[in-house]
Amino acid sequence: MQFYTYWRSLAALRVRIALNLKGVEVEPIVVDLAAGHQARPEYAAINPQMALPALIVDAGPALFQSMAILEYLDETYPMPPLLPNDARGRARVRGLAQIAVADAHPLVVPRVRTYLEREYGLTEHQRTLWARHWMGEALGAIEGHLARDAATGQFCHGDTVTLADICLASQVIGFTFFGGTSSIYPIVTGIFERSMQMDAFARAHPRLQPDAPKATS
Amino acid sequence: MQFYTYWRSLAALRVRIALNLKGVEVEPIVVDLAAGHQARPEYAAINPQMALPALIVDAGPALFQSMAILEYLDETYPMPPLLPNDARGRARVRGLAQIAVADAHPLVVPRVRTYLEREYGLTEHQRTLWARHWMGEALGAIEGHLARDAATGQFCHGDTVTLADICLASQVIGFTFFGGTSSIYPIVTGIFERSMQMDAFARAHPRLQPDAPKATS
Repeated sequence: MQFYTYWRSLAALRVRIALNLKGVEVEPIVVDLAAGHQARPEYAAINPQMALPALIVDAGPALFQSMAILEYLDETYPMPPLLPNDARGRARVRGLAQIAVADAHPLVVPRVRTYLEREYGLTEHQRTLWARHWMGEALGAIEGHLARDAATGQFCHGDTVTLADICLASQVIGFTFFGGTSSIYPIVTGIFERSMQMDAFARAHPRLQPDAPKATS
Repeated sequence: MQFYTYWRSLAALRVRIALNLKGVEVEPIVVDLAAGHQARPEYAAINPQMALPALIVDAGPALFQSMAILEYLDETYPMPPLLPNDARGRARVRGLAQIAVADAHPLVVPRVRTYLEREYGLTEHQRTLWARHWMGEALGAIEGHLARDAATGQFCHGDTVTLADICLASQVIGFTFFGGTSSIYPIVTGIFERSMQMDAFARAHPRLQPDAPKATS
Protein backbone atom coordinates (compact mmCIF):
# COMPACT_ATOMS: atom_id res chain seq x y z
CA MET A 1 0.00 0.00 0.00
CA GLN A 2 1.23 3.48 -0.86
CA PHE A 3 0.39 6.10 1.73
CA TYR A 4 0.49 9.73 0.59
CA THR A 5 1.41 11.73 3.64
CA TYR A 6 3.03 14.86 5.06
CA TRP A 7 4.47 15.21 8.53
CA ARG A 8 2.23 18.08 9.61
CA SER A 9 -1.06 16.78 8.17
CA LEU A 10 -3.45 15.97 11.01
CA ALA A 11 -5.47 13.74 8.69
CA ALA A 12 -2.36 11.75 7.79
CA LEU A 13 -1.55 11.55 11.51
CA ARG A 14 -4.90 9.89 12.19
CA VAL A 15 -4.33 7.26 9.54
CA ARG A 16 -0.75 6.72 10.72
CA ILE A 17 -1.94 5.95 14.26
CA ALA A 18 -4.48 3.44 12.94
CA LEU A 19 -1.88 1.77 10.73
CA ASN A 20 0.40 1.47 13.77
CA LEU A 21 -2.37 0.08 15.97
CA LYS A 22 -3.27 -2.50 13.32
CA GLY A 23 0.35 -3.34 12.55
CA VAL A 24 -0.04 -2.53 8.87
CA GLU A 25 3.08 -1.66 6.88
CA VAL A 26 2.79 0.95 4.14
CA GLU A 27 5.12 2.71 1.76
CA PRO A 28 4.98 6.41 2.68
CA ILE A 29 5.13 8.93 -0.16
CA VAL A 30 5.63 12.51 1.01
CA VAL A 31 3.54 15.28 -0.54
CA ASP A 32 4.91 18.62 0.65
CA LEU A 33 1.81 20.58 1.65
CA ALA A 34 3.86 23.62 2.65
CA ALA A 35 5.26 23.80 -0.88
CA GLY A 36 1.84 23.23 -2.46
CA HIS A 37 2.78 19.92 -4.04
CA GLN A 38 -0.73 18.56 -3.44
CA ALA A 39 -1.80 20.69 -6.42
CA ARG A 40 0.67 19.05 -8.80
CA PRO A 41 -0.96 17.10 -11.63
CA GLU A 42 0.65 13.83 -10.52
CA TYR A 43 -1.02 14.06 -7.11
CA ALA A 44 -4.32 15.38 -8.52
CA ALA A 45 -4.39 12.16 -10.54
CA ILE A 46 -4.19 10.22 -7.25
CA ASN A 47 -6.72 12.37 -5.39
CA PRO A 48 -8.76 14.85 -7.44
CA GLN A 49 -9.51 16.77 -4.24
CA MET A 50 -5.77 17.48 -3.94
CA ALA A 51 -5.89 16.88 -0.20
CA LEU A 52 -4.04 14.44 2.04
CA PRO A 53 -4.01 11.61 2.85
CA ALA A 54 -4.58 9.02 0.15
CA LEU A 55 -4.02 5.30 0.39
CA ILE A 56 -3.53 3.06 -2.60
CA VAL A 57 -4.79 -0.46 -1.95
CA ASP A 58 -4.41 -3.07 -4.69
CA ALA A 59 -5.42 -1.75 -8.07
CA GLY A 60 -8.16 0.82 -8.43
CA PRO A 61 -8.39 4.45 -7.39
CA ALA A 62 -6.83 5.58 -4.14
CA LEU A 63 -8.86 5.72 -0.96
CA PHE A 64 -9.27 9.27 0.31
CA GLN A 65 -10.55 11.19 3.37
CA SER A 66 -9.10 10.14 6.72
CA MET A 67 -12.37 8.97 8.29
CA ALA A 68 -13.18 6.79 5.30
CA ILE A 69 -9.69 5.29 5.43
CA LEU A 70 -9.94 4.72 9.19
CA GLU A 71 -13.22 2.86 8.76
CA TYR A 72 -11.72 0.85 5.88
CA LEU A 73 -8.72 -0.17 7.96
CA ASP A 74 -10.98 -1.18 10.83
CA GLU A 75 -13.08 -3.33 8.50
CA THR A 76 -10.18 -5.01 6.72
CA TYR A 77 -7.79 -5.37 9.69
CA PRO A 78 -10.25 -6.13 12.50
CA MET A 79 -7.74 -6.46 15.34
CA PRO A 80 -7.68 -4.53 17.53
CA PRO A 81 -11.20 -3.21 16.85
CA LEU A 82 -11.43 0.58 16.82
CA LEU A 83 -15.22 0.78 17.05
CA PRO A 84 -17.48 -0.54 19.85
CA ASN A 85 -19.61 -3.60 19.13
CA ASP A 86 -22.96 -1.86 19.67
CA ALA A 87 -24.66 0.58 17.32
CA ARG A 88 -25.16 3.27 19.95
CA GLY A 89 -21.52 3.05 20.98
CA ARG A 90 -20.39 3.29 17.38
CA ALA A 91 -22.59 6.36 16.89
CA ARG A 92 -21.04 8.01 19.93
CA VAL A 93 -17.48 7.24 18.82
CA ARG A 94 -18.16 8.47 15.29
CA GLY A 95 -19.86 11.57 16.65
CA LEU A 96 -16.88 12.46 18.85
CA ALA A 97 -14.54 11.79 15.93
CA GLN A 98 -16.55 14.04 13.63
CA ILE A 99 -16.39 16.99 16.03
CA ALA A 100 -12.64 17.00 15.38
CA VAL A 101 -12.53 15.75 11.80
CA ALA A 102 -15.44 17.76 10.43
CA ASP A 103 -16.08 20.73 12.67
CA ALA A 104 -12.53 21.84 13.46
CA HIS A 105 -9.74 20.48 11.32
CA PRO A 106 -11.13 21.58 7.89
CA LEU A 107 -11.23 25.18 9.13
CA VAL A 108 -7.50 25.31 9.79
CA VAL A 109 -5.96 23.48 6.83
CA PRO A 110 -3.45 25.31 4.61
CA ARG A 111 -5.95 26.04 1.82
CA VAL A 112 -8.20 27.90 4.28
CA ARG A 113 -5.39 29.80 5.98
CA THR A 114 -4.08 30.82 2.56
CA TYR A 115 -7.53 32.03 1.53
CA LEU A 116 -7.87 34.11 4.72
CA GLU A 117 -4.56 35.79 3.93
CA ARG A 118 -5.17 36.34 0.25
CA GLU A 119 -8.80 37.45 0.35
CA TYR A 120 -8.97 39.34 3.65
CA GLY A 121 -5.36 40.21 4.33
CA LEU A 122 -5.23 38.40 7.65
CA THR A 123 -1.79 38.44 9.20
CA GLU A 124 -0.07 35.25 10.30
CA HIS A 125 -0.94 36.11 13.90
CA GLN A 126 -4.61 36.55 13.00
CA ARG A 127 -4.63 33.26 11.13
CA THR A 128 -3.10 31.55 14.13
CA LEU A 129 -5.82 32.99 16.37
CA TRP A 130 -8.46 31.80 13.90
CA ALA A 131 -7.06 28.27 13.98
CA ARG A 132 -6.65 28.24 17.74
CA HIS A 133 -10.23 29.41 18.17
CA TRP A 134 -11.81 26.62 16.11
CA MET A 135 -9.51 23.91 17.40
CA GLY A 136 -10.32 25.01 20.95
CA GLU A 137 -14.05 25.17 20.29
CA ALA A 138 -14.01 21.55 19.17
CA LEU A 139 -11.95 20.41 22.13
CA GLY A 140 -14.45 22.16 24.40
CA ALA A 141 -17.31 20.38 22.64
CA ILE A 142 -15.57 17.02 22.99
CA GLU A 143 -14.85 17.76 26.67
CA GLY A 144 -18.53 18.56 27.17
CA HIS A 145 -19.61 15.27 25.65
CA LEU A 146 -17.02 13.27 27.59
CA ALA A 147 -17.98 14.96 30.86
CA ARG A 148 -21.66 14.23 30.64
CA ASP A 149 -21.67 10.63 29.45
CA ALA A 150 -21.11 7.58 31.66
CA ALA A 151 -19.67 5.76 28.64
CA THR A 152 -16.46 7.78 29.02
CA GLY A 153 -13.69 5.73 30.61
CA GLN A 154 -9.91 5.72 30.51
CA PHE A 155 -10.43 6.54 26.85
CA CYS A 156 -13.25 8.35 25.03
CA HIS A 157 -15.46 5.28 25.01
CA GLY A 158 -14.70 2.83 27.77
CA ASP A 159 -11.21 1.67 28.55
CA THR A 160 -9.95 0.73 25.09
CA VAL A 161 -8.83 2.87 22.18
CA THR A 162 -11.35 3.76 19.47
CA LEU A 163 -11.41 6.02 16.43
CA ALA A 164 -12.51 8.81 18.78
CA ASP A 165 -9.19 8.68 20.65
CA ILE A 166 -7.26 8.80 17.38
CA CYS A 167 -9.18 11.90 16.31
CA LEU A 168 -8.85 13.44 19.77
CA ALA A 169 -5.07 13.00 19.62
CA SER A 170 -4.87 14.68 16.21
CA GLN A 171 -7.01 17.49 17.56
CA VAL A 172 -4.85 18.09 20.66
CA ILE A 173 -1.63 17.96 18.65
CA GLY A 174 -3.08 20.33 16.07
CA PHE A 175 -4.16 22.70 18.84
CA THR A 176 -0.56 22.91 20.07
CA PHE A 177 0.61 23.74 16.52
CA PHE A 178 -1.37 26.95 16.89
CA GLY A 179 -0.25 27.73 20.42
CA GLY A 180 -3.22 26.24 22.22
CA THR A 181 -2.96 24.68 25.67
CA SER A 182 -5.29 21.75 26.06
CA SER A 183 -4.88 21.52 29.85
CA ILE A 184 -8.05 23.57 30.26
CA TYR A 185 -9.87 20.46 29.00
CA PRO A 186 -8.95 17.98 31.75
CA ILE A 187 -10.75 14.89 30.48
CA VAL A 188 -9.43 15.42 26.96
CA THR A 189 -5.93 15.92 28.35
CA GLY A 190 -6.05 12.77 30.44
CA ILE A 191 -7.14 10.68 27.47
CA PHE A 192 -4.53 12.28 25.24
CA GLU A 193 -1.75 11.56 27.73
CA ARG A 194 -2.83 7.94 28.12
CA SER A 195 -2.98 7.61 24.33
CA MET A 196 0.50 9.03 23.84
CA GLN A 197 1.90 6.47 26.27
CA MET A 198 1.06 3.87 23.64
CA ASP A 199 3.76 3.23 21.08
CA ALA A 200 1.30 3.36 18.16
CA PHE A 201 0.38 6.94 19.07
CA ALA A 202 3.80 8.12 20.20
CA ARG A 203 5.69 7.18 17.07
CA ALA A 204 2.96 8.64 14.84
CA HIS A 205 3.66 12.12 16.21
CA PRO A 206 4.25 14.65 13.42
CA ARG A 207 7.60 15.80 14.82
CA LEU A 208 8.98 12.26 14.64
CA GLN A 209 8.28 11.78 10.94
CA PRO A 210 11.26 11.58 8.56
CA ASP A 211 10.01 14.57 6.55
CA ALA A 212 9.57 16.82 9.62
CA PRO A 213 12.01 19.70 10.00
CA LYS A 214 14.81 18.96 12.44
CA ALA A 215 14.01 20.20 15.94
CA THR A 216 15.69 23.39 17.04
CA SER A 217 16.41 23.84 20.72
CA MET B 1 -37.35 9.36 18.69
CA GLN B 2 -37.02 13.11 19.09
CA PHE B 3 -35.22 14.82 16.25
CA TYR B 4 -33.77 18.27 16.93
CA THR B 5 -33.85 20.10 13.65
CA TYR B 6 -34.04 23.41 11.82
CA TRP B 7 -35.30 23.91 8.30
CA ARG B 8 -32.09 25.43 6.93
CA SER B 9 -29.61 23.06 8.61
CA LEU B 10 -27.86 20.99 5.94
CA ALA B 11 -26.89 18.43 8.57
CA ALA B 12 -30.52 18.03 9.63
CA LEU B 13 -31.43 17.75 5.93
CA ARG B 14 -29.08 14.77 5.53
CA VAL B 15 -30.64 12.96 8.48
CA ARG B 16 -34.15 13.82 7.26
CA ILE B 17 -33.47 12.21 3.88
CA ALA B 18 -32.18 9.04 5.55
CA LEU B 19 -35.19 8.90 7.88
CA ASN B 20 -37.46 9.21 4.85
CA LEU B 21 -35.58 6.53 2.89
CA LYS B 22 -35.76 4.15 5.86
CA GLY B 23 -39.39 4.99 6.63
CA VAL B 24 -38.61 5.99 10.20
CA GLU B 25 -41.02 8.32 11.99
CA VAL B 26 -39.59 10.88 14.40
CA GLU B 27 -40.91 13.72 16.50
CA PRO B 28 -39.29 16.90 15.15
CA ILE B 29 -38.29 19.57 17.66
CA VAL B 30 -37.29 22.86 16.07
CA VAL B 31 -34.20 24.69 17.34
CA ASP B 32 -34.08 28.11 15.71
CA LEU B 33 -30.46 28.47 14.56
CA ALA B 34 -31.09 31.94 13.15
CA ALA B 35 -32.20 33.10 16.60
CA GLY B 36 -29.28 31.36 18.31
CA HIS B 37 -31.46 28.95 20.25
CA GLN B 38 -28.86 26.19 19.91
CA ALA B 39 -26.92 28.02 22.65
CA ARG B 40 -29.79 27.86 25.13
CA PRO B 41 -29.06 25.77 28.22
CA GLU B 42 -31.89 23.35 27.45
CA TYR B 43 -30.37 22.47 24.10
CA ALA B 44 -26.79 22.44 25.42
CA ALA B 45 -28.02 19.75 27.81
CA ILE B 46 -29.10 17.70 24.79
CA ASN B 47 -25.95 18.35 22.74
CA PRO B 48 -23.00 19.99 24.52
CA GLN B 49 -21.62 21.03 21.15
CA MET B 50 -24.72 23.19 20.68
CA ALA B 51 -24.98 22.14 17.03
CA LEU B 52 -27.73 20.45 15.07
CA PRO B 53 -28.95 17.81 14.58
CA ALA B 54 -29.45 15.58 17.60
CA LEU B 55 -31.51 12.42 17.78
CA ILE B 56 -32.81 10.96 21.00
CA VAL B 57 -33.16 7.19 20.81
CA ASP B 58 -34.51 5.32 23.84
CA ALA B 59 -32.92 6.51 27.06
CA GLY B 60 -29.36 7.72 27.18
CA PRO B 61 -27.67 10.75 25.72
CA ALA B 62 -28.72 12.05 22.31
CA LEU B 63 -26.89 10.94 19.19
CA PHE B 64 -25.06 13.81 17.51
CA GLN B 65 -23.18 14.63 14.28
CA SER B 66 -25.02 13.91 11.05
CA MET B 67 -22.59 11.29 9.71
CA ALA B 68 -22.68 9.36 12.97
CA ILE B 69 -26.48 9.45 12.92
CA LEU B 70 -26.60 8.37 9.26
CA GLU B 71 -24.38 5.37 10.01
CA TYR B 72 -26.49 4.55 13.06
CA LEU B 73 -29.71 4.63 11.04
CA ASP B 74 -28.17 2.43 8.37
CA GLU B 75 -27.07 -0.11 11.00
CA THR B 76 -30.36 -0.20 12.88
CA TYR B 77 -32.75 0.11 9.93
CA PRO B 78 -30.93 -1.94 7.29
CA MET B 79 -33.42 -1.52 4.46
CA PRO B 80 -32.72 -0.02 2.04
CA PRO B 81 -28.96 -0.23 2.64
CA LEU B 82 -27.17 3.09 2.22
CA LEU B 83 -23.65 1.68 2.07
CA PRO B 84 -22.22 -0.80 -0.48
CA ASN B 85 -21.54 -4.35 0.67
CA ASP B 86 -17.78 -4.24 0.00
CA ALA B 87 -15.16 -2.45 2.10
CA ARG B 88 -13.65 -0.56 -0.83
CA GLY B 89 -17.08 0.64 -1.92
CA ARG B 90 -17.90 1.76 1.61
CA ALA B 91 -14.62 3.66 1.78
CA ARG B 92 -15.42 5.43 -1.48
CA VAL B 93 -18.95 6.36 -0.40
CA ARG B 94 -17.74 7.59 2.98
CA GLY B 95 -14.93 9.53 1.32
CA LEU B 96 -17.32 11.30 -1.05
CA ALA B 97 -19.65 12.03 1.86
CA GLN B 98 -16.83 13.49 3.93
CA ILE B 99 -15.81 15.93 1.20
CA ALA B 100 -19.19 17.58 1.74
CA VAL B 101 -19.73 16.93 5.43
CA ALA B 102 -16.21 17.70 6.63
CA ASP B 103 -14.45 19.83 4.07
CA ALA B 104 -17.22 22.20 3.06
CA HIS B 105 -20.26 22.41 5.28
CA PRO B 106 -18.45 23.23 8.57
CA LEU B 107 -16.90 26.28 6.92
CA VAL B 108 -20.26 27.88 6.16
CA VAL B 109 -22.34 27.22 9.28
CA PRO B 110 -23.80 30.19 11.19
CA ARG B 111 -21.15 30.13 13.93
CA VAL B 112 -18.39 30.58 11.34
CA ARG B 113 -20.20 33.27 9.35
CA THR B 114 -20.89 35.13 12.59
CA TYR B 115 -17.21 34.91 13.55
CA LEU B 116 -16.12 36.27 10.15
CA GLU B 117 -18.40 39.25 10.64
CA ARG B 118 -17.53 39.93 14.25
CA GLU B 119 -13.77 39.41 14.10
CA TYR B 120 -12.91 40.65 10.60
CA GLY B 121 -15.85 42.85 9.73
CA LEU B 122 -16.82 40.86 6.66
CA THR B 123 -19.97 42.15 5.02
CA GLU B 124 -22.90 39.87 4.26
CA HIS B 125 -21.83 39.85 0.61
CA GLN B 126 -18.29 38.83 1.54
CA ARG B 127 -19.58 36.09 3.80
CA THR B 128 -21.76 34.81 0.98
CA LEU B 129 -18.76 34.70 -1.34
CA TRP B 130 -16.79 32.82 1.34
CA ALA B 131 -19.52 30.23 1.64
CA ARG B 132 -20.01 29.92 -2.10
CA HIS B 133 -16.27 29.43 -2.58
CA TRP B 134 -15.95 26.52 -0.16
CA MET B 135 -19.20 24.87 -1.18
CA GLY B 136 -18.11 25.10 -4.82
CA GLU B 137 -14.63 23.75 -4.09
CA ALA B 138 -16.15 20.66 -2.53
CA LEU B 139 -18.57 20.13 -5.41
CA GLY B 140 -15.63 20.39 -7.79
CA ALA B 141 -13.73 17.80 -5.76
CA ILE B 142 -16.71 15.47 -5.74
CA GLU B 143 -17.16 15.98 -9.49
CA GLY B 144 -13.48 15.12 -10.00
CA HIS B 145 -13.84 11.88 -8.09
CA LEU B 146 -17.08 10.93 -9.83
CA ALA B 147 -15.59 11.66 -13.26
CA ARG B 148 -12.52 9.48 -12.86
CA ASP B 149 -14.01 6.39 -11.24
CA ALA B 150 -15.83 3.61 -13.08
CA ALA B 151 -17.83 2.93 -9.91
CA THR B 152 -19.91 6.04 -10.60
CA GLY B 153 -23.32 5.17 -12.00
CA GLN B 154 -26.75 6.73 -12.00
CA PHE B 155 -25.86 7.70 -8.45
CA CYS B 156 -22.49 8.37 -6.79
CA HIS B 157 -21.77 4.68 -6.35
CA GLY B 158 -23.54 2.46 -8.82
CA ASP B 159 -27.22 2.77 -9.53
CA THR B 160 -28.67 2.88 -6.02
CA VAL B 161 -28.71 5.62 -3.43
CA THR B 162 -25.99 5.69 -0.78
CA LEU B 163 -24.91 8.06 1.97
CA ALA B 164 -22.81 9.85 -0.67
CA ASP B 165 -25.93 10.89 -2.59
CA ILE B 166 -27.54 12.17 0.59
CA CYS B 167 -24.48 14.31 1.32
CA LEU B 168 -24.24 15.42 -2.30
CA ALA B 169 -27.84 16.61 -2.19
CA SER B 170 -27.23 18.63 0.98
CA GLN B 171 -24.16 20.11 -0.65
CA VAL B 172 -25.96 21.17 -3.84
CA ILE B 173 -28.89 22.63 -1.90
CA GLY B 174 -26.50 24.48 0.40
CA PHE B 175 -24.62 25.84 -2.59
CA THR B 176 -27.82 27.36 -3.93
CA PHE B 177 -28.45 29.02 -0.55
CA PHE B 178 -25.32 31.05 -1.23
CA GLY B 179 -26.13 31.83 -4.86
CA GLY B 180 -24.11 29.01 -6.40
CA THR B 181 -25.07 27.30 -9.65
CA SER B 182 -24.18 23.64 -9.62
CA SER B 183 -24.74 23.15 -13.35
CA ILE B 184 -21.01 23.63 -13.94
CA TYR B 185 -20.63 20.24 -12.25
CA PRO B 186 -22.56 18.05 -14.72
CA ILE B 187 -22.17 14.65 -13.05
CA VAL B 188 -23.07 16.09 -9.65
CA THR B 189 -26.06 17.85 -11.18
CA GLY B 190 -27.32 14.69 -12.89
CA ILE B 191 -27.13 12.71 -9.66
CA PHE B 192 -28.77 15.52 -7.70
CA GLU B 193 -31.66 15.71 -10.17
CA ARG B 194 -32.20 11.96 -10.09
CA SER B 195 -32.11 12.07 -6.29
CA MET B 196 -34.66 14.86 -6.07
CA GLN B 197 -37.07 12.83 -8.20
CA MET B 198 -37.33 10.47 -5.25
CA ASP B 199 -39.98 11.33 -2.71
CA ALA B 200 -37.60 10.76 0.23
CA PHE B 201 -35.30 13.49 -1.06
CA ALA B 202 -37.94 15.84 -2.42
CA ARG B 203 -39.99 16.16 0.75
CA ALA B 204 -36.85 16.60 2.85
CA HIS B 205 -36.06 19.87 1.07
CA PRO B 206 -35.46 22.74 3.51
CA ARG B 207 -38.07 25.00 1.91
CA LEU B 208 -40.79 22.39 2.47
CA GLN B 209 -40.24 22.13 6.23
CA PRO B 210 -42.95 23.46 8.54
CA ASP B 211 -40.54 25.89 10.19
CA ALA B 212 -39.29 27.35 6.89
CA PRO B 213 -40.32 30.91 6.10
CA LYS B 214 -43.23 31.12 3.70
CA ALA B 215 -42.08 31.47 0.11
CA THR B 216 -42.33 34.91 -1.47
CA SER B 217 -42.89 35.08 -5.18
